[in-house]
Amino acid sequence: MTRRVDEAAAHAAFERALGGAREAFGDFFLSRFLGLEITQTAEACIVSFEVADFLYNPQGTLHGGIMATALDIAMGHRLHHLLGAGTTLESKFQYTGAIRAGRVTCRGEMLRQGRSICFLRAEARDQAGELLAFATSTWKLLAKA
Amino acid sequence: MTRRVDEAAAHAAFERALGGAREAFGDFFLSRFLGLEITQTAEACIVSFEVADFLYNPQGTLHGGIMATALDIAMGHRLHHLLGAGTTLESKFQYTGAIRAGRVTCRGEMLRQGRSICFLRAEARDQAGELLAFATSTWKLLAKA
Amino acid sequence: MTRRVDEAAAHAAFERALGGAREAFGDFFLSRFLGLEITQTAEACIVSFEVADFLYNPQGTLHGGIMATALDIAMGHRLHHLLGAGTTLESKFQYTGAIRAGRVTCRGEMLRQGRSICFLRAEARDQAGELLAFATSTWKLLAKA
Amino acid sequence: MTRRVDEAAAHAAFERALGGAREAFGDFFLSRFLGLEITQTAEACIVSFEVADFLYNPQGTLHGGIMATALDIAMGHRLHHLLGAGTTLESKFQYTGAIRAGRVTCRGEMLRQGRSICFLRAEARDQAGELLAFATSTWKLLAKA
Repeated sequence: MTRRVDEAAAHAAFERALGGAREAFGDFFLSRFLGLEITQTAEACIVSFEVADFLYNPQGTLHGGIMATALDIAMGHRLHHLLGAGTTLESKFQYTGAIRAGRVTCRGEMLRQGRSICFLRAEARDQAGELLAFATSTWKLLAKA
Repeated sequence: MTRRVDEAAAHAAFERALGGAREAFGDFFLSRFLGLEITQTAEACIVSFEVADFLYNPQGTLHGGIMATALDIAMGHRLHHLLGAGTTLESKFQYTGAIRAGRVTCRGEMLRQGRSICFLRAEARDQAGELLAFATSTWKLLAKA
Repeated sequence: MTRRVDEAAAHAAFERALGGAREAFGDFFLSRFLGLEITQTAEACIVSFEVADFLYNPQGTLHGGIMATALDIAMGHRLHHLLGAGTTLESKFQYTGAIRAGRVTCRGEMLRQGRSICFLRAEARDQAGELLAFATSTWKLLAKA
Repeated sequence: MTRRVDEAAAHAAFERALGGAREAFGDFFLSRFLGLEITQTAEACIVSFEVADFLYNPQGTLHGGIMATALDIAMGHRLHHLLGAGTTLESKFQYTGAIRAGRVTCRGEMLRQGRSICFLRAEARDQAGELLAFATSTWKLLAKA
């Protein structure tokens, strides 16, 4: 396959990533490189981004690992927002649709909050509201310093 | 946190990614950006890479989504090597250890091969052989053109 | 541990199971033995049952495998109701609470319906509405005869 | 479907279950009803049982929930044998083959042991050694009294 990525878009993403002044929740190299916009509502953490071809798998659609990364960030940032930092014990991703272009919106929510263990879920949809992926995960809260 | 990423390492990864001439199994933008070395043995697809700080989560260890991406690539490339391209229906990742530096080696294997559905598994280990992550996944083979 | 199960309750369940005249969706030996009431609404398959001590794990709460069985039945019966019989490729269960007595209500819903692959989800709650378990699964539709 | 279960086999299983004198690891109502033989080797907990038609799904093969129960018991008993009792946070089951008759042998192993969190895996095979199911799970150790 002689397909090449859009170099200008890749360059812009890389410069955006390098240009950040910090590495923290809501704003870190990977989140900037992926172009993630991360916000919190009363019920969920919303993570949205524009699909770019440098994030494709070899079959020419958004790589599942990148989708998993965005969903993981939606869940991890929801946990951090509500309770503080945690570590992912496990996560499962179901891929219900492929996407080549347009905006993906992920929504991460608390499923069940325990004292040390929390369960979260997330979903990703395209601009038309079609479900692209569904995730569940289990986290262990880090002890506070 | 005022931590900044190693800009020289990030630049080198980005140039390596842009420098590639194709977008195909074994060699595509994301695989080059992550620095993945992808090979096949008789039993498994081996995917190895060096942990870099621009792949960290906000807590300063390799992001689980990047680990998931490498494990997914190990499984997807194993399937492609044995049977041709497929689409991931789902995957689950258990994170058994965190890593900040050094080389990660992933090993993707066929668990059970069906006519249209295949089950795969993968594990990631550090240089000392410690298990970092364990994955299982379910794939649907794409119909051949 | 010298705990013994409630023999009258176990006998009643066994007689109920044996007394059934058929082995079909909605009414089969295991569903009768577990005392499952299986109904369909516009959005979901509802499976409810009373926790009995002969369904306990060695630690004296409802066995996770029985909870998984009820959730699996809620999802499989939802799929059957909407589209016909399918085979489970995989399912994941998160256990968010333990239960010793009272009624469990499971709710199985379609997450995303494809031509040959369907994704479902289910949840189990106690009488107070507390989440006991959350499940997701992937199914392959059986070809119609 | 007018299929009926083998009543003699079901009766024998029920009497075996009722006849037990205790409810403990390795020997409890459900394990006796399913006819589980539970042993430990140096590396794994082995749980084996004979498939009976009263454990079928409505499609006439061993119910996935029963397979999940046996695999869960293999993992939970391995954990109990090595470290003491724990609670399942989550488990995932991949169903790679169906079975109607004969003996199923499950093998539960520790994947990674932590201070409070343990990861386990298990597989089920038929008498010919064919893989029927593969499971992974995450457990939280119960604090010792």
